[in-house]
Amino acid sequence: MKFETDEFVADRIKKLGEKVTTDIFSSTSPTFNLPVRAASNIHYNKDDGLLYLGTNRSTRDFFNFAHTRKFMQTLLVASKCKELIENQKTASIRELYYELKHNIPGTKENTFEGQDESDPLIEDLETMTDSLREQLHLKADSSGILFGKLIIEDMGDRIDCSKLGKSGLAIPSIVDDYKFLQCDADYVLVVETKAMVDRLVEEKFHLENNAILVGLGGQAARGARRLIKLLNERLKLPVYVFTDGDPWGYYIYSVVKTGSMNLAYESKRLATPNCRFLGMTMDDVDNFSLHKVTEHLKDVDKKRINQLLSYEWFKKPHWVKELKAMLSKGIRIEQQALASKSLEFVAKEYLPQKIAKKDFID
Amino acid sequence: MKFETDEFVADRIKKLGEKVTTDIFSSTSPTFNLPVRAASNIHYNKDDGLLYLGTNRSTRDFFNFAHTRKFMQTLLVASKCKELIENQKTASIRELYYELKHNIPGTKENTFEGQDESDPLIEDLETMTDSLREQLHLKADSSGILFGKLIIEDMGDRIDCSKLGKSGLAIPSIVDDYKFLQCDADYVLVVETKAMVDRLVEEKFHLENNAILVGLGGQAARGARRLIKLLNERLKLPVYVFTDGDPWGYYIYSVVKTGSMNLAYESKRLATPNCRFLGMTMDDVDNFSLHKVTEHLKDVDKKRINQLLSYEWFKKPHWVKELKAMLSKGIRIEQQALASKSLEFVAKEYLPQKIAKKDFID
Repeated sequence: MKFETDEFVADRIKKLGEKVTTDIFSSTSPTFNLPVRAASNIHYNKDDGLLYLGTNRSTRDFFNFAHTRKFMQTLLVASKCKELIENQKTASIRELYYELKHNIPGTKENTFEGQDESDPLIEDLETMTDSLREQLHLKADSSGILFGKLIIEDMGDRIDCSKLGKSGLAIPSIVDDYKFLQCDADYVLVVETKAMVDRLVEEKFHLENNAILVGLGGQAARGARRLIKLLNERLKLPVYVFTDGDPWGYYIYSVVKTGSMNLAYESKRLATPNCRFLGMTMDDVDNFSLHKVTEHLKDVDKKRINQLLSYEWFKKPHWVKELKAMLSKGIRIEQQALASKSLEFVAKEYLPQKIAKKDFID
Repeated sequence: MKFETDEFVADRIKKLGEKVTTDIFSSTSPTFNLPVRAASNIHYNKDDGLLYLGTNRSTRDFFNFAHTRKFMQTLLVASKCKELIENQKTASIRELYYELKHNIPGTKENTFEGQDESDPLIEDLETMTDSLREQLHLKADSSGILFGKLIIEDMGDRIDCSKLGKSGLAIPSIVDDYKFLQCDADYVLVVETKAMVDRLVEEKFHLENNAILVGLGGQAARGARRLIKLLNERLKLPVYVFTDGDPWGYYIYSVVKTGSMNLAYESKRLATPNCRFLGMTMDDVDNFSLHKVTEHLKDVDKKRINQLLSYEWFKKPHWVKELKAMLSKGIRIEQQALASKSLEFVAKEYLPQKIAKKDFID
């Protein structure tokens, strides 16, 4: 999928504005028509393995008193994003709120009272213009870290990600402008915890195995998800995901692979449907004799496992078997439990064996 | 303060072990003597502006049945840390737990049942050997980001922190092995939120003002605190702290400056007592006409302000005035509220003006 240019996105915002002026000059009520972003309108597409928004749409009508304030706010957000694009600036979604917050002259009304009013309108604008918020020049919170034999150009700087010691590159919120200058890596290993990435870097796993390591630090931030997709799509690198053996880790994997429910309209740009799950699994507990270092499931874990079992994209024989085994054994297992073998074990035995045997779940 | 070599720290652990064998061969009960780490034993030293542990000590006695398990665990932790140092390995505190967790032969007892058993013993070992956990080759969670005209050597890699685009260097947990090869910066600006660092990098603030930017992403992690201290101590750079104008931001500043209550035994190595607070302040709200973009104090904010007022290290006229002004106005102000002026305002006017006027609170 092509990532549209700034001009293209700015033009789509302009068209929204033109629609409003056309409505006004033809003496009809100005309206926006936009997709419904509720769970009822989210569908899993088995063919490409992604979550999508369905076709239900709603209308925002300026002359409907209940819509008037939101209509005005939508135009403010759209106008500011167009300005950001034209001025080649980016803003955090909190900055956007503060930039737009002001008193409406001659009234006691403020344009916005809280960020909870502006955030959903950003999502509306994304769906209406069929673009990512990063294309609207808006930044989400960033999180994530990268190591490996990859040379990136970022804002004119040439960054060799194999020469960043044990520190690594902080993954920013916007990565679409990265140029991949050179890549000597064979695959991308996405890792749930930063502590596990530290371990792998200490063992020089990334250098000895030609792996690009992406550490998420919990749930994957948008910048990290987009970067994983770009590495897969542009550099044709396979992507393996390595999380804790628990429902929380499995959901992190599913967000990287399938998309997330509240950002279903962006799956196509953020998700990597051909990524593969490497571990930890219940079979690992047996195969690597890790029984002593499992943890007992808590009620909240069991509840989450049952939730996953109800999601359509987990209704595959391998995943159902895995989740049910977890329930019947009553245990979960962490990445770092592999340290019970030895600190080097994960880098010298566990990962190389799993990758060589292609012992993955899809 | 000198950072002791690995040999020195390993030797202090060895001396703990020798004390135990001496006790055994002289037929007395093996004991450890260690400082009490409770709030009652934490003191603020006005002279150097740091939090310290007091002189209260307690004894851990192998033949006291209530102490036996902890005594055994303390020896396991000490022994593993000595091994890590000697093998030039580092481990996360979670890995340490998994490495030491095993069944005690001939019993149904495990050495450790949870990480809540091993973590406090790490703190015990730090105080007993008068060393940081990083010197024991243990890693805490890392967080934080760095940009600026600074060239670092990390694990043999030469990293120019002014050539990392908008991505930046991820600050690891252990930074004592950083070599500072070259520094063309005039000061360090410590920033509470990563989003604000993004803003400053987009405006090229760090390059145009010769500033090293350290983004904390909330409360300062140990690695970031230690790095700020090293930049101040080794490179003689002044340190300015820029947080939200609320009690949470002010406490972040006080941890960087004075130390934290639960790590009071490490203030000397982690805190930077001569750092200065730049903003946001209640005076900023007036001086920069920001009344429209303040937030109302919630009960939890008010409670926290009163807590800060009770801490000895906030009992300075400037801080008391600041905190009371916040209470009487009933408002707080965020860094990102400066965007209401314009996105560039913070980089082109606010920070340069405050720094030129030396408008700081100490």
